[in-house]
Amino acid sequence: MNPLGHHLLGEFTGCDPARLASPEVVREAMLAAARASGATVVAELHHHFSPLGVSGMVVVSESHLAIHTWPEHGFAAADYFSCSPRVDMACAMALLAERLGARAHTTLELQRGPLQVPPRP
Amino acid sequence: MNPLGHHLLGEFTGCDPARLASPEVVREAMLAAARASGATVVAELHHHFSPLGVSGMVVVSESHLAIHTWPEHGFAAADYFSCSPRVDMACAMALLAERLGARAHTTLELQRGPLQVPPRP
Repeated sequence: MNPLGHHLLGEFTGCDPARLASPEVVREAMLAAARASGATVVAELHHHFSPLGVSGMVVVSESHLAIHTWPEHGFAAADYFSCSPRVDMACAMALLAERLGARAHTTLELQRGPLQVPPRP
Repeated sequence: MNPLGHHLLGEFTGCDPARLASPEVVREAMLAAARASGATVVAELHHHFSPLGVSGMVVVSESHLAIHTWPEHGFAAADYFSCSPRVDMACAMALLAERLGARAHTTLELQRGPLQVPPRP
């Protein structure tokens, strides 16, 4: 079976803790990232955990973008699942990095259906 | 940095197309899977794509469970992100496999924060 989708995992370090703790900032960043990638947003859900952290999920026509933030570590983890080659998932991750004030971000792309791990760099 | 979370990717093949096409069946399966894993469901969002396929996302206190289905291929891809060692993500995947009538399912677990790919088997 050829890959039906691609799954891009992104991690953001050295982020601004205040931005990671704000459901509004995270929600705006997620919607902007989904749109910047060329995807069509169909639904979204953001949840603020007490005392810290935000989980955000955006369903797009092409699949989903999700994020979890750890303000206390200046860290966030995102994943973008897409079944369309027209979606620029790397662009979404770069926009998230900028909006969250990340000092660095790393990404790893996997093929889905069948599940394939890329070779180690 | 030690891993802040674990991300279990699951793929389901040879599923019952009628179940994969039903937003109700997929939603019930996702909620049952999250609960069976020991997680606490805080919000959920399921979307039915026309003409085929369902995207489901469940936010749990411990992070998220997401799924995308391809009824035309009898295939579904899920991912479970958890920041709690008490969550049994493999149990959730096994329950999804049973509910979706999968003939087989495979999983791959990654550490998140920092992103680490496991060695190839």
